[in-house]
Amino acid sequence: MIQQLIEKIQKTKAPICVGLDPMLSYVPEHVKAKAFKEHGETLEGAAEAIWQFNKEIVDHTWDLIPSVKPQIAMYEQFGLPGLAVYKKTVDYCQEKGLVVIGDAKRGDIGSTSAAYATAHIGKVQVGENVFQGFGTDFLTVNPYFGTDGVKPFVEACNANDKGIFILVKTSNPSSGEFQDRLIDGRPLYEWVAEKVVEWGSSSMDGDYSNVGAVVGATYPEMSRILRGLMPHTYFLVPGYGAQGGTAEDLKPCFNEDGLGAIVNSSRGIIAAYRQEKYAKCGPEHFGEASRQAVLDMAADISRVL
Amino acid sequence: MIQQLIEKIQKTKAPICVGLDPMLSYVPEHVKAKAFKEHGETLEGAAEAIWQFNKEIVDHTWDLIPSVKPQIAMYEQFGLPGLAVYKKTVDYCQEKGLVVIGDAKRGDIGSTSAAYATAHIGKVQVGENVFQGFGTDFLTVNPYFGTDGVKPFVEACNANDKGIFILVKTSNPSSGEFQDRLIDGRPLYEWVAEKVVEWGSSSMDGDYSNVGAVVGATYPEMSRILRGLMPHTYFLVPGYGAQGGTAEDLKPCFNEDGLGAIVNSSRGIIAAYRQEKYAKCGPEHFGEASRQAVLDMAADISRVL
Repeated sequence: MIQQLIEKIQKTKAPICVGLDPMLSYVPEHVKAKAFKEHGETLEGAAEAIWQFNKEIVDHTWDLIPSVKPQIAMYEQFGLPGLAVYKKTVDYCQEKGLVVIGDAKRGDIGSTSAAYATAHIGKVQVGENVFQGFGTDFLTVNPYFGTDGVKPFVEACNANDKGIFILVKTSNPSSGEFQDRLIDGRPLYEWVAEKVVEWGSSSMDGDYSNVGAVVGATYPEMSRILRGLMPHTYFLVPGYGAQGGTAEDLKPCFNEDGLGAIVNSSRGIIAAYRQEKYAKCGPEHFGEASRQAVLDMAADISRVL
Repeated sequence: MIQQLIEKIQKTKAPICVGLDPMLSYVPEHVKAKAFKEHGETLEGAAEAIWQFNKEIVDHTWDLIPSVKPQIAMYEQFGLPGLAVYKKTVDYCQEKGLVVIGDAKRGDIGSTSAAYATAHIGKVQVGENVFQGFGTDFLTVNPYFGTDGVKPFVEACNANDKGIFILVKTSNPSSGEFQDRLIDGRPLYEWVAEKVVEWGSSSMDGDYSNVGAVVGATYPEMSRILRGLMPHTYFLVPGYGAQGGTAEDLKPCFNEDGLGAIVNSSRGIIAAYRQEKYAKCGPEHFGEASRQAVLDMAADISRVL
């Protein structure tokens, strides 16, 4: 699966992932008004508004990007109708040829992780039939349980040609509280990184493993060390743009071949129309603003590679 | 919310939580056959089978127990129909007067954790209206992101009189891989425990905080230390029974007042009919087997308290 992602990155020349993390407050009034008119001010109405919002953004950006990363929390908050739109978004993006990274940060004891893996990157058997629950291409995974909580995800990768990105060093301000604590002289995130390499060693797909790592853009010095520790691990890099990470900060996430990282931007792309820079598009043409923001992001990153 | 749980524990004299973690393989053939006849061998058929299975178990145990803990992964694996049954199970258990602990182990950066908190223990605003996504009473939370990833859950507890249980020391075999690593001479789980106390200090509800901890039954020596570090923190204790934890192992999880912990059993209760001990019930009376298993578990635990 990582090869598929790399090919799309090379084709688009954009190591970019658009974070489809729609807050209702990001959705322009005219989109909300239409959805509420049809479904009322209900969970279904909110879900429909988000769906129309996503669709417009995908329709305006799919030819420029290799992948999207819907954050499932933003859909879960609207309950079942929200999750139905998560699934609809996943399906639609795959129809458009995009690699879909389900951002769900799942992780639990082995038997439960196996169920999550089945749900998101696996298949479930019902009698004689086989189904996909959500069917994303990649899933983000939390490592706190250790090997037996991660292994079912790796097995699902191997069985279904899928991929995962395991949290190593996250982009948020307090990520250091536990992740940076020193164990035998080295921060926890380095120990996690070494395990990620070990877990991914049986999942090579070309030069890289299907088992990747989440490494925040906001801590470039740490990215540099992690890049060295994990030469064959693809990085999913959150934190660029709205969270404060700059293009310069991204540089150490990449290998010398210009590969090795895919950079996510959520708010910076999907709510671009609200930035002064793209205000000329107006809320009616929010998709166009997102397209322009993708082009600007790709140019910004290619500047440092 | 923790007071409500404590009152129910005192009333039932059973510090027990039934883990509603239905694998399709646990569901007796006659239940599956009926569901598949109505809905085919589909995700809907699987979901219906699980719903009938859950309902029978709840109907046979609700008067003996204070709470249930549905593990959302087991529902997610059946996609949207599975999650609809998760919601249906939550609602049904609450109608029966049970405290519902949503076992979802969510956690992310602040804005995303806020969306998860809204989804599971909060309310979402849509225009003039307010809705609950899943509406459980408690939620389990993963601490890997540190304070800003946990705070939105604590705020949701305070705003809605709900509770959370934060992973401290999990019950699985490889939990020690990261959790037991020494930082300044003390294992990571102790550092997490201290943070849990800090995070929960503004959420007191009687003698205990609405911010609890997950502490596995399988490591009693560690439970003893954690009990000392977190005197006002309620423990959700997985790992009893099928995972290997015994009643003796549970003892250090409790305070001297006999409170302070609620013990989960999943397979041991919901698949009791498959144990030799309860075989006389037969698959037709699997609910009766679960009832007997609850009574036996309560007796086993009260023996050591």
